[in-house]
Amino acid sequence: MHAASDPVANLQTLIRCPSVTPAEGGALAALEAMLKPLGFAIERPVFSQDGTPDIENLYARLGKQGPHLAFAGHTDVVPVGDENAWSHPPFAAEIAGEEMFGRGAVDMKGGIACFVAAIARFLDQRGGPPGSISLIITGDEEGPALNGTVKLLDWAAAKGETWDACVVGEPTNPGRLGDMIKIGRRGSLSGRVRVAGTQGHAAYPHLADNPVRGLLMLSEALLYPAFDDGTRDFQPTNLEITSIDVGNPATNVIPAAASLAFNVRFNDRWTAESLQAEIHNRLDRAARRRKLRPGRREPVRFEIEWNERPSHVFLTRDVRLIKLMSEAVEDVTGRRPELSTSGGTSDARFIKDYCPVVEFGLVGQTMHMVDERVALADLEGLTRIYERLLARWFEKGA
Amino acid sequence: MHAASDPVANLQTLIRCPSVTPAEGGALAALEAMLKPLGFAIERPVFSQDGTPDIENLYARLGKQGPHLAFAGHTDVVPVGDENAWSHPPFAAEIAGEEMFGRGAVDMKGGIACFVAAIARFLDQRGGPPGSISLIITGDEEGPALNGTVKLLDWAAAKGETWDACVVGEPTNPGRLGDMIKIGRRGSLSGRVRVAGTQGHAAYPHLADNPVRGLLMLSEALLYPAFDDGTRDFQPTNLEITSIDVGNPATNVIPAAASLAFNVRFNDRWTAESLQAEIHNRLDRAARRRKLRPGRREPVRFEIEWNERPSHVFLTRDVRLIKLMSEAVEDVTGRRPELSTSGGTSDARFIKDYCPVVEFGLVGQTMHMVDERVALADLEGLTRIYERLLARWFEKGA
Ligand SMILES: [Zn+2]
Ligand SMILES: [Zn+2]
Repeated sequence: MHAASDPVANLQTLIRCPSVTPAEGGALAALEAMLKPLGFAIERPVFSQDGTPDIENLYARLGKQGPHLAFAGHTDVVPVGDENAWSHPPFAAEIAGEEMFGRGAVDMKGGIACFVAAIARFLDQRGGPPGSISLIITGDEEGPALNGTVKLLDWAAAKGETWDACVVGEPTNPGRLGDMIKIGRRGSLSGRVRVAGTQGHAAYPHLADNPVRGLLMLSEALLYPAFDDGTRDFQPTNLEITSIDVGNPATNVIPAAASLAFNVRFNDRWTAESLQAEIHNRLDRAARRRKLRPGRREPVRFEIEWNERPSHVFLTRDVRLIKLMSEAVEDVTGRRPELSTSGGTSDARFIKDYCPVVEFGLVGQTMHMVDERVALADLEGLTRIYERLLARWFEKGA
Repeated sequence: MHAASDPVANLQTLIRCPSVTPAEGGALAALEAMLKPLGFAIERPVFSQDGTPDIENLYARLGKQGPHLAFAGHTDVVPVGDENAWSHPPFAAEIAGEEMFGRGAVDMKGGIACFVAAIARFLDQRGGPPGSISLIITGDEEGPALNGTVKLLDWAAAKGETWDACVVGEPTNPGRLGDMIKIGRRGSLSGRVRVAGTQGHAAYPHLADNPVRGLLMLSEALLYPAFDDGTRDFQPTNLEITSIDVGNPATNVIPAAASLAFNVRFNDRWTAESLQAEIHNRLDRAARRRKLRPGRREPVRFEIEWNERPSHVFLTRDVRLIKLMSEAVEDVTGRRPELSTSGGTSDARFIKDYCPVVEFGLVGQTMHMVDERVALADLEGLTRIYERLLARWFEKGA
């Protein structure tokens, strides 16, 4: 029996590597040491970019033929926050009350530990896969993600790697193992709207032009009416204004400028481009209204600045992959998981350009929090689910 | 002829005293030296308060009987700003092109210089006033105004001083000498509205409560509909939102709180109290709306914090004082001044509790600016206007 077939031991090893982005912290080296005895060919490409730290990544492949199933994830973790508030040290991987405590326990060193254990058990039973299994692991998912999955996929594809399907091991279950598989993600788009006004004294508003009035009109146009009611596979598109900033300390003074920041999560009724056009239209129309700017003839003077790199919406079209993932979950947990496209973005948004991708992992409740932890039973459960998926996916005709 | 009968010389003396609030800078001492030869009894009370600098003030009275006409003003000035940007040094009182340059030239050492010159000329002609003339001069009008006119009036009243009318010498003319007499002022009220929300991830808005949505609804209720259309004597009540502050740098995060600051200038349809009640009502109603908060049942959680000391609205009821001030202006300039209640507040808001008050002074265009300056012709014109007012006001039956 392979040593790596115990997910609890795997996870303890990984948590004890303090790999807060951008530090590798020994986590990829530890992963390499687990995979090597299983027969994987392992590469550790480092990517860099002006002004950002070098980032280590890992690509491991077992087998030379198709079909080719990949597992994707990250070993980097978010900072520990208030270390004194943890009931167990964040990098000690201590077990208490049938739970393991530590940063990355569920997001997502736990997912990697289970995937490695599942492969080890699968190989113990079958000898070798009837195809190929890969791990696509980055050290830059929680950070700016500039030197992570995007470059790793590009690098692997450039040397001829292709994949037939991919499972991302992010924590997808809101409450219990088996709740939810993610089969797509909404897109995400952010921007800032800056409104120019004319400074002046609050007692002489006609000599000034209060930019807050224009900003309020533009804000309402961003929020109302709703962009859509949702689609068959997705929640409604939703925009949140995340900040408004004027910063005027003088109560007698009308300020010269005001700005707001917003983020939209959008469904498959939109592309990033069509949504940007809709937002421009809404703002242009609102800028000509007068409701909150009585007596003003000129439209609100504003600029919109889009954040770089919107996340595009996607939906997994591989019915077999979704079916096998669902059945593997149901086999082990006895529960039929919800197929969801809700929530935030993940690296799946990059992988979907190379092969069909679904996401399933541990329970996310404590991710990014103090006392992040995982039930030992969930580690065993997820290992069995991944093992089941490997078995069924490589089964001809399943 | 009294030396003080030349307003140009008076003003040069005053400008050369660098009396930026809270510094006396020699200005009150110089004023005392001008008034003493005219026969005034002069007192220089100093007021102080925990945490603020001591402030010098001046009260001068000529005559022991009624009727009693007062002139009110301030010798303190605002900072010079960028001193290098001045074409003449701000405390040199240099004359160029028939104008005198210097901080306080129009706001309002110029007004004081003219009033003193007018009294000197009046006394030259009449020997002494058939009543009393006083000067109520503070060194704390441009600053926090805690140790200025309010305390000076209180102090004078406590020792039995009463006045029949008062002229404030602030620069009231927007473009040319003779444009405008102020016969009242709108009230002013400021506050801050703080909205509480629940922080969360922008991808899970239902798990959070974005306070910006509530803030936008409350903002619209503050601005719309208009409070009134104005009254016979006053402009419409107007509210300006002077700042909105969220300060959330993370585009993926829904913030926990948002706040706005506002200032209202209100007319005689309102008292500070009735306006506060109206604003409370508007906010309470808006907090229960759902337009920008679909699906939320609980009202917007907000608090309102009123700035201390609202300025109360007032209108001068002394028809004779207004008529004589207007006629004096028309006699000298040939123009009938507009009787206005527009613009910001002044110390007249405190004086109105003791006696009828009007405001008339120089042209305000350069006040508080680099290259503050006054036309020498305006100094002569304003001196004649004040002299005319003295003559007519003390005339029986005028
Ligand atoms: Zn993650
Ligand atoms: Zn002034």
